[in-house]
Amino acid sequence: LKEIRVLQIGLGAIGLEIAKLASKKRSLKMVGASDLMKHVGEDLGAVLGSGELGIKVIPDYRKALKEVKPDLVLHATSSYLQDIYEQIVDCVKEGANVISTCEELSYPFYKHPDLAKNLDHLAKKNRVRILGTGINPGFLMDTLVILLTAVCQEVKGIVVERVIDASHRRQAFQRKIGAALTEEEFVSKLEGKEISGHVGLEESIAMISDALGWKLQRIEAEQPKAIIASKQVSSPYYTIPAGRVAGLQQTARGYVDGEARVTLLFKAYIGAEDEYDRIHIIGIPEVNQIIRPAVQGDRATAAVVVNSIWPLLKTKPGLRTMSDLQTLSCK
Amino acid sequence: LKEIRVLQIGLGAIGLEIAKLASKKRSLKMVGASDLMKHVGEDLGAVLGSGELGIKVIPDYRKALKEVKPDLVLHATSSYLQDIYEQIVDCVKEGANVISTCEELSYPFYKHPDLAKNLDHLAKKNRVRILGTGINPGFLMDTLVILLTAVCQEVKGIVVERVIDASHRRQAFQRKIGAALTEEEFVSKLEGKEISGHVGLEESIAMISDALGWKLQRIEAEQPKAIIASKQVSSPYYTIPAGRVAGLQQTARGYVDGEARVTLLFKAYIGAEDEYDRIHIIGIPEVNQIIRPAVQGDRATAAVVVNSIWPLLKTKPGLRTMSDLQTLSCK
Repeated sequence: LKEIRVLQIGLGAIGLEIAKLASKKRSLKMVGASDLMKHVGEDLGAVLGSGELGIKVIPDYRKALKEVKPDLVLHATSSYLQDIYEQIVDCVKEGANVISTCEELSYPFYKHPDLAKNLDHLAKKNRVRILGTGINPGFLMDTLVILLTAVCQEVKGIVVERVIDASHRRQAFQRKIGAALTEEEFVSKLEGKEISGHVGLEESIAMISDALGWKLQRIEAEQPKAIIASKQVSSPYYTIPAGRVAGLQQTARGYVDGEARVTLLFKAYIGAEDEYDRIHIIGIPEVNQIIRPAVQGDRATAAVVVNSIWPLLKTKPGLRTMSDLQTLSCK
Repeated sequence: LKEIRVLQIGLGAIGLEIAKLASKKRSLKMVGASDLMKHVGEDLGAVLGSGELGIKVIPDYRKALKEVKPDLVLHATSSYLQDIYEQIVDCVKEGANVISTCEELSYPFYKHPDLAKNLDHLAKKNRVRILGTGINPGFLMDTLVILLTAVCQEVKGIVVERVIDASHRRQAFQRKIGAALTEEEFVSKLEGKEISGHVGLEESIAMISDALGWKLQRIEAEQPKAIIASKQVSSPYYTIPAGRVAGLQQTARGYVDGEARVTLLFKAYIGAEDEYDRIHIIGIPEVNQIIRPAVQGDRATAAVVVNSIWPLLKTKPGLRTMSDLQTLSCK
C-alpha cells in the first residue's frame, strides 16, 4: 500500500483519539489538522503527546484542504448531517476521501435522502469515497448484526441492546445523557434540544433493513427517557445523589409488513453494573450473542474509523456504508 | 438481480440442506443436480420435499455441467482440497462460479499454496470466482473473529472456542468424531485415518493472521483427543456408556513473533451441556464475545453458503476468501 496523506478535521475527544491512532500507522501520514477552537496554533504532535510533527493546528479547514491536498480526511465534528454537509462537500471537491464520525452519515438514505443523493453524486464526480462510521452507529448495532444474520436461513426479528456505564466515558458524553440533572431539568433540556440522547438508532435500523432486503415501512423512535439513580453514583465528573438523573434509555423500532421487526434499545447511565452488547436474532437458526462487558466506545470508535480506511479505499467512488465494505479487521 | 442458474454437486446431508435453501430463493434457479451415489435418477424437487422440478439427479457432474451450463455450482463433496481439485477445475473451465463447503478451500494458501495459485489463475482466466465457506471454517472461527478485531486499536492475542453437543448433528458427523468407540479404537482409527476430527482450524488461523497482517511463522495443530463419557449419554444414533468416547477436542495455535498469538479450541461431543461459541480478543479495547447456545452447524452452513452467493458475485474473478467479501447478510 502506498502512503495515504491524512488531514484531521475536529480535535475534540474523539477526533484526538482518531488522530492519535492514525499517526501510529505506518501507511498513513498525518499532513494537517484543523479545529475551530481547540488546540489552535499548537503542533499536532505535541497535542497527541508524541514528538513534534511540524503540523500546526489551524481553525480554517478550507485553508488546510487547499494547502495539504490530503488523500483522506478523518472528520469528527458533529452528529448531524446538516451541520457538516458543507464541510464534507468542501473535502470532496478538493479530491479527498472522507471518513466521518457524524452519526447521521452512517446511513443517510433514510432521514436525508436528498443530501445523500447529492453526496453520492459529488463523490462519484470527484472519484472519491465518503463513509460515516464509528462504534455506534457503524458497528455494534448494525454491521455486526448484519453479519450475524448470515448464519440464518431466515430471519423473523432482531433485537439489539447496548447497555453502558457512562462513568468512564468523556464528560461531553455524560452531559449529553443528562447526568446529574433533576428529572424536570432533563425534560426541559430535552425539549430545548440542549440534550439529545444518542443519535444513530434510526440509521442502524435503516441499514439493517436495507442489508436484509426488507421494505421498511416506518421507524418509531421514542424520545429518550431519564434513568433515575436509585442510590448515589459517581463518575470523575459528576456525583449523582439518589433521585437525580444517572443517564438515559432510548428505544427505536423498525416496522416491516406491519410488525416491529427490528428493535434497538440503548441505555447509557452512570453506575450501570452490567454493561453489555447483546444481539438476538429470531430466525433459523436462532442466534443469541453477547459481548460483556460492552465494547468501550471512544477507543473503539477511533479503531473502527481507522480500520475502515483500507477497505473503503478499495470500493468504487461514491457515498458508501459499512455494508459495502469487505470484512474489516484491526490493521 | 438477474436470475442465477445453479447446479448442485453433492447431495449428502449438507448438500441437501444447501439445495433446499437455494431452491427457495427467488433470484436463484436450480437447473441441475449431481451425486455419485445418492438419489441418482430421482427428481431433485422430490428429493428436497418440494414439488417436481423436472431435474433428474445424475451421477456424472461433468455431463451436468455441459448440459446445463450453470452460472454457479454449489459444491459439497469432501473436506480435502486434493480430493475435489479436479471437480473445481472442471466447473471453472465450463465457466461456472463455485462455492464449496470443502474445508481446506476456505483458505488454501497455507496448506496448498500451489493448488491455490492454479485455481486463482484458472478462475481469472475463465472470469469466475471460487470460494470455500461454511459455518466452520468460513464464519465462526475466522470471519466473525476478523470483524470483531475491527473495534481494536491493537490486538495482542486471540482465543476462540467452539463447544458443541454432537447429539443433534448428522450421523456422519457423529461417526467422524469417534462417537461410541473405545479409547483404543479411537486411537487406532485416528492412526488409520478412519476418523479425522474437524478439518479447518489451520485454515481459520491462517485466514485470521492474513487479515490482521501478521506474519505467521507456523501452526501447531494437535492431534484430536478423545473426550470420554463420564456417564451414559445418547443421540438418535448412538448410546454411549460411561468410559466410551463421546467425541473429541482439538487445539491449534498460530505462532507470530515466537508467540502463540491465535489459539483455536474445538470440542464436539455427545452430551455437551454447555454449548457455545466464544471469541476473546486480548487487545485495546478487549473484547469478550459469546454466542450461547452455539450456532447450529448444518443449517448455518447452508445459510452461509447461500448468503455468500451475492457478495461473491460482486468480487473480481479469482480464488476468493470470506475476508474479500463485503458484509454478508441473510438474503
